[in-house]
Amino acid sequence: MHFEEPLALTSGASLRGYDLSYETYGQLNADKSNAVLVCHALNASHHVAGVYLDSQGQVMPRSEGWWDTLIGPGKPLDTERFFVIGVNNLGSCFGSTGPMHVNPDTGQVYGADFPVVTVEDWVNAQAVLLDRLGIGQLAAVIGGSLGGMQALSWTLQHPERVRHAVVVASAPNLTAENIAFNEVARRAIVTDPDFHGGHFYRHGVIPKRGLRIARMIGHITYLSDDVMNEKFGRQLRAIAAEVGRDRAYQFTTQDVEFEIESYLRYQGDKFAEYFDANTYLLITRALDYFDPARLHGGDLSKAFAQAAAKFLLVSFTTDWRFSPARSRELVKALLDNQRDVSYAEIDAPHGHDAFLLDDPRYMAVVRSYFDKVSL
Amino acid sequence: MHFEEPLALTSGASLRGYDLSYETYGQLNADKSNAVLVCHALNASHHVAGVYLDSQGQVMPRSEGWWDTLIGPGKPLDTERFFVIGVNNLGSCFGSTGPMHVNPDTGQVYGADFPVVTVEDWVNAQAVLLDRLGIGQLAAVIGGSLGGMQALSWTLQHPERVRHAVVVASAPNLTAENIAFNEVARRAIVTDPDFHGGHFYRHGVIPKRGLRIARMIGHITYLSDDVMNEKFGRQLRAIAAEVGRDRAYQFTTQDVEFEIESYLRYQGDKFAEYFDANTYLLITRALDYFDPARLHGGDLSKAFAQAAAKFLLVSFTTDWRFSPARSRELVKALLDNQRDVSYAEIDAPHGHDAFLLDDPRYMAVVRSYFDKVSL
Repeated sequence: MHFEEPLALTSGASLRGYDLSYETYGQLNADKSNAVLVCHALNASHHVAGVYLDSQGQVMPRSEGWWDTLIGPGKPLDTERFFVIGVNNLGSCFGSTGPMHVNPDTGQVYGADFPVVTVEDWVNAQAVLLDRLGIGQLAAVIGGSLGGMQALSWTLQHPERVRHAVVVASAPNLTAENIAFNEVARRAIVTDPDFHGGHFYRHGVIPKRGLRIARMIGHITYLSDDVMNEKFGRQLRAIAAEVGRDRAYQFTTQDVEFEIESYLRYQGDKFAEYFDANTYLLITRALDYFDPARLHGGDLSKAFAQAAAKFLLVSFTTDWRFSPARSRELVKALLDNQRDVSYAEIDAPHGHDAFLLDDPRYMAVVRSYFDKVSL
Repeated sequence: MHFEEPLALTSGASLRGYDLSYETYGQLNADKSNAVLVCHALNASHHVAGVYLDSQGQVMPRSEGWWDTLIGPGKPLDTERFFVIGVNNLGSCFGSTGPMHVNPDTGQVYGADFPVVTVEDWVNAQAVLLDRLGIGQLAAVIGGSLGGMQALSWTLQHPERVRHAVVVASAPNLTAENIAFNEVARRAIVTDPDFHGGHFYRHGVIPKRGLRIARMIGHITYLSDDVMNEKFGRQLRAIAAEVGRDRAYQFTTQDVEFEIESYLRYQGDKFAEYFDANTYLLITRALDYFDPARLHGGDLSKAFAQAAAKFLLVSFTTDWRFSPARSRELVKALLDNQRDVSYAEIDAPHGHDAFLLDDPRYMAVVRSYFDKVSL
């Protein structure tokens, strides 16, 4: 969907002539009362559920939507009952306007000049898309991690347009440690000689070294210590000649020795092939900046006084990135305002990644919540 | 101290014509029964206590030894009673032979060809130094973090030469997450174009980008989430014109916005000025490889059957790098062997860094332990 009218951004800048990529699932009912908006996190997109077919009508491999465990016909967020909308955020690299596109004001690729966007800006862009789709009020907005921040922000910026907010593995803001991890990842990208201050497109290169490091750091924070020990532990990478034996150390500092190293390198390589470096900077900065209490003297309860939606919050015990304690801060702020809030703390071993996985208790909580959402 | 005779290394390689830098504090008694060896961690050296004087006899600024809180006249490890020895490990960049020195076999700077050294190799080199000093048995060996691993290793490799081992904020091996952080740091260094496969010396450059990233990652893991929030939180970096006001966001992805970013960049810059990139690889690899249970089918209790020393172990509640649970694994293995072991879990907010700080309860525990060490 193309939008010519300018979008005013939190920074004071504005963006005009932008596109938003989106997908929908299910049917909008006659009352337009069954729409659910799904907000994405760092490296996801508008493709939240289902698969793509190739020109022969065959399912394309690995084309499942990123929240296909949760969303679809008969699934916890049931697309036979709800009209589900996935939107790719501005600044992303999966279809909506981003740093790799041409700035209509200059005729040049944005690169590092793409304006800094915030969670609030994304929400406003999503609201403009809903206007265009003729949807006045959402039955629900749902997101995990950074997507959960967007769901929270919806209830503050457009309280009258959201009946329910489902906020999974999220937080009211980033801690110093969260910001620190983002900053190290950004420095790895920005100091890669192939970054060229963010204008690498015109040099025909990609700062892959930095992207790899950023992704490796990210992966460490997505997993729990427990699940890393269970999946990889201190296992040495299998060497063909020594399979089945407890092989000796290779005594190398630059090559792979342990399985965990091999896993991280693989994830880093894969990411550097498809993700945009400027998008990485923009999205981590939006995470850093999100802080609804900031405009209320740091008082989260005051910030949520304006929320009118009903809430479901979900956290995971081993998530050390957005720990249950952060979700409990949100629960407290909502209860301080006598909001209607359900909270589930799921005892799952998978760390932050759990919000993308098919944990039966998690799925049951979300299903049961959506079953009670009246249309 | 120069050693001409070759040191056989765990990898099968050997090192000859090497130097060990060391410092001593206090006096060796007539029985030579009061020697305490101090083992260092990643970026420390043989300069464990005291200060340096300049040519005018003035104290040089910031010249305190890295464990000066703990070691000195009247301090918990009292140099009026004990003869304390600090040794710089092989492969380091603070005086002992390392990658920046000339390989006597080739006449070339070692660089990436410096052999991979292990905790066991360091302990063996320390033992050779003690031989030269005429010290048969140590009253105690003490170390924190990687230094604690050396102390543990002393009790296994040379059980008859150690009466006491003091092991602070350490672990029986690294977890997958620990190895993962090391690997990301190493990849940042190795993929820095200025690394040149480890032979950057001959190109007249230093892989500072990689070293900065490595140090930033390290610092995040040394601190606790709590202390980071307390010291930095979400505080924005002070801007001269706006001091005292809650300044607005700058909306920047490449410049410093938060205090924590400024702190990490400063630490990274400082480190890149003095630390050697090949040393970083070697020392983190020694950490990865340490695993005394490995030769005993993963059974830590079996590994410690050969230990004869008495033990003090200390851990810190907020240390998520080498958590109290890891120290408790060691305590259990020692108790399984009916060893004499004291264990203190200090409720300190500072994370892994606590082992270098002047916490009164921690200091009291170490003091009380050393007071009971008979000479």
